[in-house]
Amino acid sequence: MATRKQVAELAGVSEAVVSYVLHNKPIVKEATRLKVLEAIQQLGYRPNMMARGLKMKQSRQIAVLVGSLGNPFEAGVLLHVEQTAQRHGYAVFFHSYSEQSEEELKELLHGRVDGIMLLGQSLREDTIQHFLSTGTPIFSLMAPALHHQDVGSLDLDWSKAMIKLAAHLKERGHQRVALMTHGSLRHYASSRANAFQAAAEAEGLICSDEMTLFGGGTFEHASAAMAEELKKYDQGAALPYTAIVAVNDLMALGILSACRKMGVNVPVQLAVAGCEGILMSGETSPPLTTLLYPREELGSRGTALFIGMISGDSTIKPPDGELDAELMVRGSV
Amino acid sequence: MATRKQVAELAGVSEAVVSYVLHNKPIVKEATRLKVLEAIQQLGYRPNMMARGLKMKQSRQIAVLVGSLGNPFEAGVLLHVEQTAQRHGYAVFFHSYSEQSEEELKELLHGRVDGIMLLGQSLREDTIQHFLSTGTPIFSLMAPALHHQDVGSLDLDWSKAMIKLAAHLKERGHQRVALMTHGSLRHYASSRANAFQAAAEAEGLICSDEMTLFGGGTFEHASAAMAEELKKYDQGAALPYTAIVAVNDLMALGILSACRKMGVNVPVQLAVAGCEGILMSGETSPPLTTLLYPREELGSRGTALFIGMISGDSTIKPPDGELDAELMVRGSV
Repeated sequence: MATRKQVAELAGVSEAVVSYVLHNKPIVKEATRLKVLEAIQQLGYRPNMMARGLKMKQSRQIAVLVGSLGNPFEAGVLLHVEQTAQRHGYAVFFHSYSEQSEEELKELLHGRVDGIMLLGQSLREDTIQHFLSTGTPIFSLMAPALHHQDVGSLDLDWSKAMIKLAAHLKERGHQRVALMTHGSLRHYASSRANAFQAAAEAEGLICSDEMTLFGGGTFEHASAAMAEELKKYDQGAALPYTAIVAVNDLMALGILSACRKMGVNVPVQLAVAGCEGILMSGETSPPLTTLLYPREELGSRGTALFIGMISGDSTIKPPDGELDAELMVRGSV
Repeated sequence: MATRKQVAELAGVSEAVVSYVLHNKPIVKEATRLKVLEAIQQLGYRPNMMARGLKMKQSRQIAVLVGSLGNPFEAGVLLHVEQTAQRHGYAVFFHSYSEQSEEELKELLHGRVDGIMLLGQSLREDTIQHFLSTGTPIFSLMAPALHHQDVGSLDLDWSKAMIKLAAHLKERGHQRVALMTHGSLRHYASSRANAFQAAAEAEGLICSDEMTLFGGGTFEHASAAMAEELKKYDQGAALPYTAIVAVNDLMALGILSACRKMGVNVPVQLAVAGCEGILMSGETSPPLTTLLYPREELGSRGTALFIGMISGDSTIKPPDGELDAELMVRGSV
């Protein structure tokens, strides 16, 4: 059995450099890295950490599966994913995800990537098993709608965040609050929706299932759904609630747009809140009251966590625990 | 020399199916396609069209290099790129682009993709040569800042579009118009900026170099640059122009935001126009006067054009000519 020292001698480097290569440290030049890998292969060297599954031909690439390219919140997260990955010597590429194309995904990503990151959406159980069994770990930024014990994740502490929002609504005198969610249970929106319903109950607000609207996650769908709703209730004059919370900001902006077009005064006739704090949420009239999801922290901390897992590099240790959101009170509630 | 008929017999399909495979028609099942490719390889069959460089091991993947993940206009284009590629049997993945990482790109994409699409940004001459010489064609959606005879492109007819905008500004009584552009000459913003300056001159407006602001392409940078400008001119009271055109909508929204914060009345003290027509441009107060760039057409027609080129499939023939933009007159000019 070869030793690390023999590998170092054959490659003409120090033992420390061999160690860097094994831990995928980006400080090693590519030419040196290749020399070390050749020596490892030639001597058949297998350090203990190999048990975790070091692949000799690592791609140093991560695939990020994106549900919605057009959502500025997600785009903002991706920026930080990419910067963090780069800092650790990994390249990132993006692939859009839809339930219809999971078979295709298996083929596309096979043997190409060291890991797969999801943006909160779910993969089918057999797809998850396929990737895990071929040695490709999966990590979800934002909790996946369908939890899976072998898929790691990082998300906001939604219970805590939604309590802040529900308490604010109560303080402003609201008792009956509607909820706009995505409509697909596989979407990360569902964990936010559940958290809001629980928070509303805890604060003594009424937020029943009949007061749930489905906005498909986008501005356009949300705007159309709200317009439909307002038509049903005599242009909003007889709405059975005084406030509505959308589980992403794009949908909240769609609601604002529908209200403006139908002459419904926000916040007098209807208060509106979102929960991400995208840039444009401060530019509407009125500006949106929302939670500020720390997307930089989500992207950078989640990516560092995942790369630590993939590379077995125990020095990559971002702080533990879920993320915290600040309530931004603006004009709409 | 083997014939197409022999290939068909060996693969157990009709000659038409062999032809479909050679032309990368998506209607052929994957299993059949593989059988035909095996037969072609076994018999050493080389049809004339091979001269164009049919690779036996096509990846049927296209890489799309994206400059800014956070720009909703670009995100909207990507959606249609992806849908069109899928319809023609191609998978798309996205990779962010920066001038600093072109070497890395060569390595990442080598042998992996049948073609590279750019979103208006430029690659270095040696990078372009590298990809072209390894048989990887390049196509740019929106004109690349640095034109290259071997890089195809599709864009709006900016001369025509900017004349519409300049004529509207003139009609509203403006004589001195500032311009906000990106700041990097490698950015597609520069072709839009040039087109506006030419249009302004043609309409007899004054738009001198001293009236050019640099907004870096993003909402935040544009907002900060405009705030600086307004401070210089006594909170906007003594601006040497009455209108400003931003070469993308995000920058125009940044300008609106700065004006609102500094108490500058739009359009009374300063008129503001954009030139893409992103969704949020209709939601600000006042809503933005802008050009409506048909991004669906850009994405779908550009992608079809490129896939026609890559696959040698002459049946993919989208309509010729540049795209046309509609002027959307709203509250800001």
